[in-house]
Amino acid sequence: MTETTKPNPSAAMLVIGDEILSGRTRDANMYHLAGRLTEHGIDLCEVRVVSDNPDAIIGGVRALSGAFDHVFTSGGIGPTHDDITADCVARALGAEIDIREDARALLAAHYDAQGIELNEARLRMARIPDGAVLIPNPISAAPGFSLGNVHVMAGVPTIFDAMVEGLLPRLTGGAPMLSETMAIYRGEGEIAAPLGALAERFSDLSFGCYPFQRDGAYAAHVVVRGRDAGRLSTAMAELRDLLLA
Amino acid sequence: MTETTKPNPSAAMLVIGDEILSGRTRDANMYHLAGRLTEHGIDLCEVRVVSDNPDAIIGGVRALSGAFDHVFTSGGIGPTHDDITADCVARALGAEIDIREDARALLAAHYDAQGIELNEARLRMARIPDGAVLIPNPISAAPGFSLGNVHVMAGVPTIFDAMVEGLLPRLTGGAPMLSETMAIYRGEGEIAAPLGALAERFSDLSFGCYPFQRDGAYAAHVVVRGRDAGRLSTAMAELRDLLLA
Repeated sequence: MTETTKPNPSAAMLVIGDEILSGRTRDANMYHLAGRLTEHGIDLCEVRVVSDNPDAIIGGVRALSGAFDHVFTSGGIGPTHDDITADCVARALGAEIDIREDARALLAAHYDAQGIELNEARLRMARIPDGAVLIPNPISAAPGFSLGNVHVMAGVPTIFDAMVEGLLPRLTGGAPMLSETMAIYRGEGEIAAPLGALAERFSDLSFGCYPFQRDGAYAAHVVVRGRDAGRLSTAMAELRDLLLA
Repeated sequence: MTETTKPNPSAAMLVIGDEILSGRTRDANMYHLAGRLTEHGIDLCEVRVVSDNPDAIIGGVRALSGAFDHVFTSGGIGPTHDDITADCVARALGAEIDIREDARALLAAHYDAQGIELNEARLRMARIPDGAVLIPNPISAAPGFSLGNVHVMAGVPTIFDAMVEGLLPRLTGGAPMLSETMAIYRGEGEIAAPLGALAERFSDLSFGCYPFQRDGAYAAHVVVRGRDAGRLSTAMAELRDLLLA
């Protein structure tokens, strides 16, 4: 075995937003982050979606930051009354929070250039906990931040994506998770027994089976995931012999 | 005040699936369920996504079923080795589980009609906890089930949606959550102060503010939600006077 046996860093995501829970908005950030973390070699182990409620946010941050190497949050860092994420993260981790000069300077430069007043509401976006490292926002200036192992980012998908790109190079990833997919044009129930036996023999890999239909016929995608390319290709060869023969 | 002051039933969702956490699949069931529960007068308060791992599933079921009136699960009830939801839910709630005759009969009829063998793998889908009530599956027969306050459904979106339609009439809803949206063609930071003051005065309603851009200009959707149509329309009238004047 190689150094890939060292486990990858683990991660959780906390999506903050009534608009997701009410069905108004379909989440896009979870899907985007999941893919980028997989490529970066960080294992996303759990996602929680909570409402814009202090107890829910504080409880979620504490539970996840204690259980995983990294926590990524999405949403609730704008200028309006429902944007309470920064204050809740500070409280969850016992940090002081106030308007910070480096964040205020970023906002001032951004709004000055557009001739827009940096009023009290917009200044809320400069509330950053003591000790936090800013996450750049190349789109609308108001920064995210990392406090301990909690990385706080915007909910608007274009801004969230840009923040993720600014943040990821700072985080040490492990071996990227590799995956291969095989389409099998038989019902899941047909292939379940041999697939289960193979999954047991290759216990260092993960085997998923996802049914679909084509032209009314049952079919399934078998997805094999792991960090060792050699093991993965051995398993795929056996899978072909077993299921496509 | 009317009887709408009685709180709606609360709910959580547990999405089970490595394919969501790895970024392979974009979740659709959360979005669908969120909308249907809102219409039915059940408040979705939290969603968790966990991997196909017994401890994660059992822990999630216990935490959520203790904290909310209803828990809806999605995923992991097919015939393959990674389909462990039914057994995990039974363990989480201390119920016995085995192949149940009513579920076996549904599967037998379905597969007989197609001339397909009801083999051992497919029979796994008849494993139903003692005391559970079946949730019909009009698409591929293999049923979901309700055990206590936990409702176990398939991960394939067409089947999940059909199971939700079969289940909802059995669940008592409260007053449907109503919402109204107003587009404001000004930056969030511009409207934050008057909006916050209004939200404070209408504390029985929830006010969300969701920024977007149109033709490069800042704009926002203000969403007001509540269960009393009269209060909602009063708030919207004040909002119009305040922000569109």
